[in-house]
Amino acid sequence: MVIDGRKIAEEILEETKNEIQKSGLKLKLAAVLVGGHAESRKFLKLKEIAAKKIGIDFRLYEFPANITTQELHKEITNIIKVKINSGIIIELPLPKHINAQYILNAVPEEKDPDVLSQKAQGVFFANRSPILPPAVEAVRVILRHSKINLKGKNCTVFGYGLLVGKPVSHWLASQGTTVSIVNEFTPNPADLSRTADIIVSGVDKPNLVTADMVKDGAIVIDFAKDVDFEKVASKASFITPPIGGVGPIVVAAVLKNLIILANKKAP
Amino acid sequence: MVIDGRKIAEEILEETKNEIQKSGLKLKLAAVLVGGHAESRKFLKLKEIAAKKIGIDFRLYEFPANITTQELHKEITNIIKVKINSGIIIELPLPKHINAQYILNAVPEEKDPDVLSQKAQGVFFANRSPILPPAVEAVRVILRHSKINLKGKNCTVFGYGLLVGKPVSHWLASQGTTVSIVNEFTPNPADLSRTADIIVSGVDKPNLVTADMVKDGAIVIDFAKDVDFEKVASKASFITPPIGGVGPIVVAAVLKNLIILANKKAP
Repeated sequence: MVIDGRKIAEEILEETKNEIQKSGLKLKLAAVLVGGHAESRKFLKLKEIAAKKIGIDFRLYEFPANITTQELHKEITNIIKVKINSGIIIELPLPKHINAQYILNAVPEEKDPDVLSQKAQGVFFANRSPILPPAVEAVRVILRHSKINLKGKNCTVFGYGLLVGKPVSHWLASQGTTVSIVNEFTPNPADLSRTADIIVSGVDKPNLVTADMVKDGAIVIDFAKDVDFEKVASKASFITPPIGGVGPIVVAAVLKNLIILANKKAP
Repeated sequence: MVIDGRKIAEEILEETKNEIQKSGLKLKLAAVLVGGHAESRKFLKLKEIAAKKIGIDFRLYEFPANITTQELHKEITNIIKVKINSGIIIELPLPKHINAQYILNAVPEEKDPDVLSQKAQGVFFANRSPILPPAVEAVRVILRHSKINLKGKNCTVFGYGLLVGKPVSHWLASQGTTVSIVNEFTPNPADLSRTADIIVSGVDKPNLVTADMVKDGAIVIDFAKDVDFEKVASKASFITPPIGGVGPIVVAAVLKNLIILANKKAP
């Protein structure tokens, strides 16, 4: 079964809209884009559309690629000070000369729907976060749709990046699954993935996961167009397509996190 | 080869002593023991002996098992306020009625040689910590002694606890190894461990790791007396013994962390 990410995202957005109306809060999402990377701009546009659809204001703050770490840090500090900005997202990747984690750390936990500051990551890794990193929320929702019982299941995670591999591995391990984390140095990833009930990939390498690496009935969640979709789909019980898969769910998860954080903050 | 943890610990303590003398700083380790658990008391005694040996003052603060979370939090806040206490360790486990993470969070990052507050965990998981959690430092030092090149190596980690499995898994994955995390629900841990170049165990279940689960030449690091030592030793290239293995190294790592933190703080 091909996961309809757009439909799942609509459900999350609908719930989120209801939560916002119930709270009576006015939310605004501030998005920071540095260097105007086309792919990042496209993804931010999707976040803007989704936000406005459910009554969340959106403002894009753009900075040139040659901004220094200190200048950007100062700009973000100013954006945070604007009370009406209930959340700030910093679209990654940042230009290479920028100290990305230092910039992400400027966002206080209560305005960090991406769970990317060190502080927010620490709370998440201690299993005490009120919100999940958007990629983890996407995995959680998809697995809930598949009705799989996680305990004792075998998972293979491709990649160990900040946005997908690292948080998803931690979350899956915390759910009582067996997790194998493979990377570019793994000699035979197929040896692990072939026994996996759940495969999550976040590498950005086309055809990294091919049909011979997937067992019949596996659940395949692809964040980075790593999966040879057509052929793997014929074996998988559930699979996310390269378009309309995890993307819309991740967008919806960011907005869902915004209202959870705002409700927590509200008196 | 059986790893001589006492000898490795001596080397770390010697280096740490030199660092302390070089810094001219006066260090004091405050240790918190709640409920007087015999095993915890024994482990703290070893920390005290090692500390005093290299010129670090040590003070034990004991509290009864029936102390409340709020009372304990207040006591720890007071201990932290004592300027001369350069580090605070809270011996785990705490009694079940205590909110352990909340208590651990009372320790500020610069006085947290165990890397157990959420904040310190976040810094570590973002790969930006100046110190490693003591169990991770023990793994790092043992692997350095074995002269193994980590990239592409296959690791199996038994358990995903706060002190061993979670931080060690993260660190190994960050070093470019392939990491499989197994837990109590894993149907066949041997399927994974049998291909592992490195096995780390932190479960506290005797004979969890038996000789048939270990490949010839593997490195076996046992934090919790999980390994069938005599039989596994005949296959392993390097193995930590149940006594005089990782224990003394972990103790030394705590003290090493203390001077690193103090040097960072010093003007």
